[in-house]
Amino acid sequence: MQRYFIEKNQVNKPFIKITGDYMHHMTRVMRMRVHDKVYFCDQETTYIASLETISQLELIFVIEEEFIEEKELPVNVTVCQGVVRKEKMEEVIDHITEMGASFYQPVVMDFCNIKLDNEKLEKKQVRFNTIAREAAEQSHRTKVLEVKPLIKFKALLEESKNFDLCLYAYEKSTNMDSLKTILKNNTYKNILVVVGPEGGISKEECKLMDDFNFKRISLGPRILRTEVAPVYFMAALSYELEN
Amino acid sequence: MQRYFIEKNQVNKPFIKITGDYMHHMTRVMRMRVHDKVYFCDQETTYIASLETISQLELIFVIEEEFIEEKELPVNVTVCQGVVRKEKMEEVIDHITEMGASFYQPVVMDFCNIKLDNEKLEKKQVRFNTIAREAAEQSHRTKVLEVKPLIKFKALLEESKNFDLCLYAYEKSTNMDSLKTILKNNTYKNILVVVGPEGGISKEECKLMDDFNFKRISLGPRILRTEVAPVYFMAALSYELEN
Repeated sequence: MQRYFIEKNQVNKPFIKITGDYMHHMTRVMRMRVHDKVYFCDQETTYIASLETISQLELIFVIEEEFIEEKELPVNVTVCQGVVRKEKMEEVIDHITEMGASFYQPVVMDFCNIKLDNEKLEKKQVRFNTIAREAAEQSHRTKVLEVKPLIKFKALLEESKNFDLCLYAYEKSTNMDSLKTILKNNTYKNILVVVGPEGGISKEECKLMDDFNFKRISLGPRILRTEVAPVYFMAALSYELEN
Repeated sequence: MQRYFIEKNQVNKPFIKITGDYMHHMTRVMRMRVHDKVYFCDQETTYIASLETISQLELIFVIEEEFIEEKELPVNVTVCQGVVRKEKMEEVIDHITEMGASFYQPVVMDFCNIKLDNEKLEKKQVRFNTIAREAAEQSHRTKVLEVKPLIKFKALLEESKNFDLCLYAYEKSTNMDSLKTILKNNTYKNILVVVGPEGGISKEECKLMDDFNFKRISLGPRILRTEVAPVYFMAALSYELEN
């Protein structure tokens, strides 16, 4: 059964009103008819609703059932990544949404070989948000990952003070706690994890993160590409907390 | 420093001889010159070698150092997947190679919506092997994942007898051991894990796998796409065994 995210103000019990893109998707793509059922989620409650009325302007559904789903990770995760190619950003946004991340934060870092400013990023924002929403629908999440505006590395350091655990993945990692030791028996609320761009993280950036109390973690003995590292991290976190 | 996989018979200590595609890559793509260094790996020993002689026919390197790297998972993992589109197979082969899998086994399953026979697959085999080799080089593995020929589901069931742990990922999983319980405090040598195609695993297939002592596992509370599920599994395994 198809899933759709709606705003709370679209729910007027026992009815849910649908217009715009979703209406187009339902009538043209899914070719829905009266009595067809879908899931709606207002990022809190999930509804099963049946299509009641089709008009030129709107679709009216009747709620048949409502419930709370437990699909979300018990911790908010912000995945920060040095700027990479658009296709790679899209892949990461899709995959980490499926794995339960809350935010994706692109960061300008020393070894980024892609030039991107917020103006360029804004044009891509619509596409990124669509990918996140579709991945959330497909994976039956009740919340949608948010893609944040581009920030500089210094701003990220300041931002890190709002998290109770800040991590960065670094390949040449010795003398550090294992990720398992860090995650075990701890109940963090907000985790920030930094993954470098294709060129990696510079020594200077490592030093600054160390100064800001980031913990250095290894994602296993093999070298992961920048688009694979966030997926490894999210899977490890889910395995530790949800399995 | 660039890494290359070689055959044992290319090593004639203290020399390593390179011809063919690698010679082309080194001279034309990397534009290497005498005294440039690379890593070579014969799937057992890793060598650091320096380019000594460039001729029309071959390149001769001199070994400067040799050592054993510990980059491989302590268990052989065969990832079986219901046949999916070529692009998705390529993504999975790349990602699970980076995460340490040993074999990728495409399987004809009930809900596959792609028609593929071994003749078609053979044409793609060269490309798949290149992807696996490049991912292994890039992730600094010492072994290359092998893409196996397509088999039918029944043959997979027979094949499963050669493994000491057989698993399948199933979304609607209740009353089962968690993946963590299965992996913890066990030392498996050969693990087989089955991930359904986009249409999922049929009830009949589940029943057959249950009969063949497969264990049903969940990969967290969210629904993962068929190309993401194997990556989750490999990351969880690496986290459990290597972290």
